[in-house]
Amino acid sequence: MPTRLTNYFLRTLREDPADAEVTSHRLLVRAGYIRRQAPGVFAWLPLGLRVKAKIEAIIRDEMTNAGAHEVHFPALLPREPYEVTNRWTEYGDNLFRLQDRRGTDYLLAPTHEEVFTLLVKDLYNSYKDLPLSIYQIQDKYRDEARPRAGLLRGREFTMKDAYSFDISDEGLDVSYQAQRDAYERIFTRLGLEYVIVKADAGAMGGSKSEEFLHPTPVGEDTFVRSAGGYAANVEAFETVVPEAIPFDGLPAPLVLDSPNTPTIATLVDLANAEYPRPDGRAWTAADTLKNVVLAVVAPDGTRELVVIGLPGDRDVEMKRVEVAFAPGEVEPATEADFAKHPGLVKGYIGPWSEAGAVLGDESSTGIRFLVDPRVVDGTEWITGANVDQKHVFGLVAGRDFVADGTVEASNVLPGDPAPDGSGPVELARGMEIGHVFQLGRKYAEALGLKVLDENGKLATVTMGSYGIGVTRILAIIAEDNNDDKGLVWPAAVAPFDVHVVATGRDEAVFDAAETIVAELEASGLDVLYDDRPKVSPGVKFGDAELIGVPKIVIVGRGVADGVVEVWDRATGDRAQVAIGEVGAALA
Amino acid sequence: MPTRLTNYFLRTLREDPADAEVTSHRLLVRAGYIRRQAPGVFAWLPLGLRVKAKIEAIIRDEMTNAGAHEVHFPALLPREPYEVTNRWTEYGDNLFRLQDRRGTDYLLAPTHEEVFTLLVKDLYNSYKDLPLSIYQIQDKYRDEARPRAGLLRGREFTMKDAYSFDISDEGLDVSYQAQRDAYERIFTRLGLEYVIVKADAGAMGGSKSEEFLHPTPVGEDTFVRSAGGYAANVEAFETVVPEAIPFDGLPAPLVLDSPNTPTIATLVDLANAEYPRPDGRAWTAADTLKNVVLAVVAPDGTRELVVIGLPGDRDVEMKRVEVAFAPGEVEPATEADFAKHPGLVKGYIGPWSEAGAVLGDESSTGIRFLVDPRVVDGTEWITGANVDQKHVFGLVAGRDFVADGTVEASNVLPGDPAPDGSGPVELARGMEIGHVFQLGRKYAEALGLKVLDENGKLATVTMGSYGIGVTRILAIIAEDNNDDKGLVWPAAVAPFDVHVVATGRDEAVFDAAETIVAELEASGLDVLYDDRPKVSPGVKFGDAELIGVPKIVIVGRGVADGVVEVWDRATGDRAQVAIGEVGAALA
Repeated sequence: MPTRLTNYFLRTLREDPADAEVTSHRLLVRAGYIRRQAPGVFAWLPLGLRVKAKIEAIIRDEMTNAGAHEVHFPALLPREPYEVTNRWTEYGDNLFRLQDRRGTDYLLAPTHEEVFTLLVKDLYNSYKDLPLSIYQIQDKYRDEARPRAGLLRGREFTMKDAYSFDISDEGLDVSYQAQRDAYERIFTRLGLEYVIVKADAGAMGGSKSEEFLHPTPVGEDTFVRSAGGYAANVEAFETVVPEAIPFDGLPAPLVLDSPNTPTIATLVDLANAEYPRPDGRAWTAADTLKNVVLAVVAPDGTRELVVIGLPGDRDVEMKRVEVAFAPGEVEPATEADFAKHPGLVKGYIGPWSEAGAVLGDESSTGIRFLVDPRVVDGTEWITGANVDQKHVFGLVAGRDFVADGTVEASNVLPGDPAPDGSGPVELARGMEIGHVFQLGRKYAEALGLKVLDENGKLATVTMGSYGIGVTRILAIIAEDNNDDKGLVWPAAVAPFDVHVVATGRDEAVFDAAETIVAELEASGLDVLYDDRPKVSPGVKFGDAELIGVPKIVIVGRGVADGVVEVWDRATGDRAQVAIGEVGAALA
Repeated sequence: MPTRLTNYFLRTLREDPADAEVTSHRLLVRAGYIRRQAPGVFAWLPLGLRVKAKIEAIIRDEMTNAGAHEVHFPALLPREPYEVTNRWTEYGDNLFRLQDRRGTDYLLAPTHEEVFTLLVKDLYNSYKDLPLSIYQIQDKYRDEARPRAGLLRGREFTMKDAYSFDISDEGLDVSYQAQRDAYERIFTRLGLEYVIVKADAGAMGGSKSEEFLHPTPVGEDTFVRSAGGYAANVEAFETVVPEAIPFDGLPAPLVLDSPNTPTIATLVDLANAEYPRPDGRAWTAADTLKNVVLAVVAPDGTRELVVIGLPGDRDVEMKRVEVAFAPGEVEPATEADFAKHPGLVKGYIGPWSEAGAVLGDESSTGIRFLVDPRVVDGTEWITGANVDQKHVFGLVAGRDFVADGTVEASNVLPGDPAPDGSGPVELARGMEIGHVFQLGRKYAEALGLKVLDENGKLATVTMGSYGIGVTRILAIIAEDNNDDKGLVWPAAVAPFDVHVVATGRDEAVFDAAETIVAELEASGLDVLYDDRPKVSPGVKFGDAELIGVPKIVIVGRGVADGVVEVWDRATGDRAQVAIGEVGAALA
């Protein structure tokens, strides 16, 4: 049965919604696909629901091909399992929590590792039951601090989440690869460009983790890639460590006056003006060692100061620092922190002073000192002398100071070498559209998921977790496929295959349109039929362009000559086609 | 692709779940369809999800046939619209409420009238846009005081809820009828017996309302029906009012001593012992007038005492009383209430005393006195004399006392006449499987849904609301279709069309089974294939009976002779069928 606009639940809007930050949000609302209910919470109108169903069907198909079985968990879950894994607390304000009438704690699940683990624990007990991959397509809840960009970051959103269960690490690799391959097939079928980046597992724990990022200017993530094929999340980028330099012949460090130079820029200016290099090369920020004081708060609440030393042309990147110190949380040191450590002279901090080591090995402050991996032995630095208004020049790493270790805390800069030797990297914006994790045994251990192994002994199961943001994908496809007139859906996910527009008031035209619509439906196409009798062709064409069905058939005066127009929404091409040839022209 | 038991996510259980109160719950858990997550909250395993999807497909199909369009609303909704209609408060403890990180109030929607109304208000503005029927199949939340019987009364459950929007009352009748007809088709296709009963609209407000009840001993509702076709919810039953009786010749009332008769039974005994009727007929409870004191608490909190007079052989039925006094809430009178009204002598209350009227017209207490509709003028009663240890005999309604009105507060008894003249009624148990309401303009008025009418004036839209409990229906079908071996699904909703069981260890048997499975799949059937190599035939047959696919094909030793067995799960019939004829035998 064709869908007729005379009685379809659809109203296109002339005005952009006031709160739309991105194109997909603006167009999906204007063209009648979605409607906002609360910040980050949307209702799906008939057109939107059709596109969502098509995306879900492709995902289901490839999950089946990957050997995964569909289940469906509730969104409302009891607190206990999330308490066991500590995620009840770790999720912080991102978790929607509630109580039932008896005062029992519940949550709206942001992800389902715990209950999938418990389900398998409930039903399975032998290695013979494994491997197992199960998935669901289900609505999830995260109380985002800043729900934004329409469906791109919502608080209620649809995800496909899959979980794999294996007895061995090798088995997990196979299950992981099967999901990873399925993701590649899904994104290819959806026509979505993707980059697979190494990712930090973050709050999910576990060992191996990759993200599927879709390069897009509206992306929330910055990722690193080289022309030679390297790609990683900024958090996962590994610095290429330079060779150490022999100390031989390096001059002794020199403490020099450096009034009013609490910043790298002022320091470099002063150095070039007052203490130029003998060989005439200018000092740059890269010649300085910046020492940043941070406080790490461990899960048990203990607070530790850490100083990070990094080349002055780089900044500490908090995302990378957070990964380095997880599960501890990192924040800038406070005045109170400094007050407790008079050995650190603010604005002039360095690992060394004329009185001896200040940070690191044999230090006087007892504060942990970690350096960027580029601070290798033999590198020379201008850095604070731990005396107000003084810096030390020519301080040599490994000779004049020894750090307590290295840390991946610096930002990545364009031109940095890729760790796999594939050349210099660039930074790009991307949006996460999928994520595959090797969780390992973390959840199985916490929740006691063990099965009997081949020797009849209890062995802890190893798990993977695999997510795709269904509603986010829909928004990204809309974000990528539009023009100034409206949406331009790829055929794989379009709400309809063809949009037939009858124009004018001539009954013969509407009769011909009815016949064409019936034939197209009979050939298996989903047809949206604009049968509105008193709407001008201009309005009808405008709606068709806004809605964005890939093929539009215009039935008008040409009917008298036995022809209609077939209009390709993407290219704008219009072709006269004999009425009997419409089906073939659309194939 | 056939589903193979060697890698399907399915484990049947030998033991009944400890918390199963009803057969459907017990079997759906044992056969691996569902799994409990919290009281009234279930996960759906692959088998269960398949049955649910089949039920949903039938509902979608008939919604489309009824001209309704599918949408999908969030479960997480803001408080405001539910505040406007007062349901935020009215739902009481049944509503799951929560706050987001900013402290804004949200709810998990138990039903969606408010937001559907607002959506149509957002998008529509003219009578030309109407009529409109839109629906969703969506998970709903109610914090039931006693979640019970598995899926029959859950706290997270799936519903189809539809809403109609019309400009005129006649239009609403048409939309209502279209949904009502669709419900009849849906239940017929699902093979579900149903009775359509007049229902009180209850908390939903509105005028016309009917429930689809499925007669079943596990039902929560009692309904009333006559052999002649009358059916109503107990709340909606209308008493047949007898003819009034002339007062002429009726003797004057007589106050008599009745020590220790605070109950109807003791009163009747005493009356028969001490004051027998002159004509020898025994007094019965039906000759007495029982006066029950209730307190009605209005929404604004004011508390009013009401006395209800009803024949002593009946009880006040609270469900009916609640309807009569809605939106007020009714509770038994307290000692404090009685203390404020010394005119009411507890255990001996009546509308009249020798000192004059106590209740009703010209009463001394000022308390409203409502009587059962059977207490017509001229009826004679034994009732309290408002003096301790005394009753009055021969008190005539309309002569000795005049009530302030009648009220439908008494329970219905088997044998009561149906109000439509279709004969005596009986009481039966049923479970609500669908509900159709004419909401009228209540929600549209509260939320300001108006459109321009034919004369260009703003007119309030009139609405209907139509619900089907999807997960409840699934449980009811399971409840009705089982035997001591397990489930026996009707073909329309069975998880698979056919269950092929390969037995023994003979490779030729498994090869033959593979071929049969492939041919059945190719013919369009959904096949569950028990290809487990080391499981005994007994266990396989037991699982097949427990799972309940309607047709089972046993592939075993007969393969050598070119035959297999086709087993009808419902009838238990087994027939030898030539391998080439299996498809035909299943058709």
